[in-house]
Order: sequence, then C-alpha cells, then structure tokens
Amino acid sequence: MIDLDAAFSALGDPTRRAILARLALGEATVMELAQPFAMSQPAISRHIKVLESAGLIIRRVEGTKRPCRLSPDAIDGLDQWLGMMRKAMAANYDRLDALLASMEQIEGKG
Amino acid sequence: MIDLDAAFSALGDPTRRAILARLALGEATVMELAQPFAMSQPAISRHIKVLESAGLIIRRVEGTKRPCRLSPDAIDGLDQWLGMMRKAMAANYDRLDALLASMEQIEGKG
Repeated sequence: MIDLDAAFSALGDPTRRAILARLALGEATVMELAQPFAMSQPAISRHIKVLESAGLIIRRVEGTKRPCRLSPDAIDGLDQWLGMMRKAMAANYDRLDALLASMEQIEGKG
Repeated sequence: MIDLDAAFSALGDPTRRAILARLALGEATVMELAQPFAMSQPAISRHIKVLESAGLIIRRVEGTKRPCRLSPDAIDGLDQWLGMMRKAMAANYDRLDALLASMEQIEGKG
C-alpha cells in the first residue's frame, strides 16, 4: 500500500514533479536527473530522498551508481484515490440528473 | 489553471482527503463536514481554508451558511498531471517492448 500522505506531500513541489516526469520516460542516475535543473547534485539528491521515502521512486544498485526509476504501483495508488473521487462525483451527478428528470416529469403532469 | 503545488500539498493530509471524499458525494456545510470527525469545527474550518486556497473546493453564500463543494476543474487538473505520467510510462514500455522484439528477431537470425 502506498503512503498517500507522504506521496501527495512529495508531489507538492515542482522540481519533484519534474523529476518524476523525467523518470516516467525511463530510468536515470542522479547526475542525469540533475542536468536539466539549475541545481546542485546534493539538492537533487535531497529531492530524490523525499520521493524515495514516499515510495514514488525505486533505486537499484549498479556498480557505483544507484539509478532511479518510477514506481508504477505508486502511480496506480494515486490513480486509485483520484478514480474513487471521480466515481463518487459521477454518481452524484447521475443522482442530480435523475432528480431533475423526475421533477420535469412532475411539472409536465402538473 | 490549478496550482498543483498547493493542491498536492493539501492532499497530503488524511482529514483533508476525507473531507474531499465527502464533498465528492455532494455539497456540505462546515457543520455537516465536522460531524464524522472527532474534531472541533474550528479545526475543520482550518482544513477547509487550506482546501479552498488550493482551489480544490469552492464555497458559496447561502444566508448565514457557506456550503462547500468540490471543484471539478481541480480534480481534472490533478487527473491531467497523472494522465501525462501514465502516458509517458506507457510510451516507455512500448519502446522497451519494440526493443526486446527487435533483439529477439536478431537473435533468431544469428
């Protein structure tokens, strides 16, 4: 199970969202991730630690490198929460539609 | 445009997510929102202010009440960001599949 508190909080930062968007295209090292940002490697490393402890990214060991990749499970977890919201909203709109339709029917008869 | 920084940060709290889940079912007043939580009305009000300033909920004036409702645009905004991530991940997997298929073909010929 994804920790939604940590995951959503981690997403509240534009650099961290940009890192995730880059990782959605494939695995990358910290050096590769730091390149497009006007940021030091230690600063990027701190963001990566936040993303890793939130379960949004996974790192593996490859010699002296520790490449990062996105956790598909984490994205699924966020998706599930949003999906639940959309479903509840849609059901609510359907109820309103049904209510309006029944009101129109009553008005038509009256 | 939704402020993704504020919206995702606001979602990093379980009470705020529960308030949004309740509002996905329809409009509610602060008093109605406070009922299911072991929390004072002022505490719930503070959460609602965070959600409102993040653009996740909208309030209207109805006499002395200010009922809250979910902003469908905000949910769409979050959805768009996640959709972009999913699309990039899927494109990445497709590229890997194509690469593996071409490698198998070369191995088959060799």
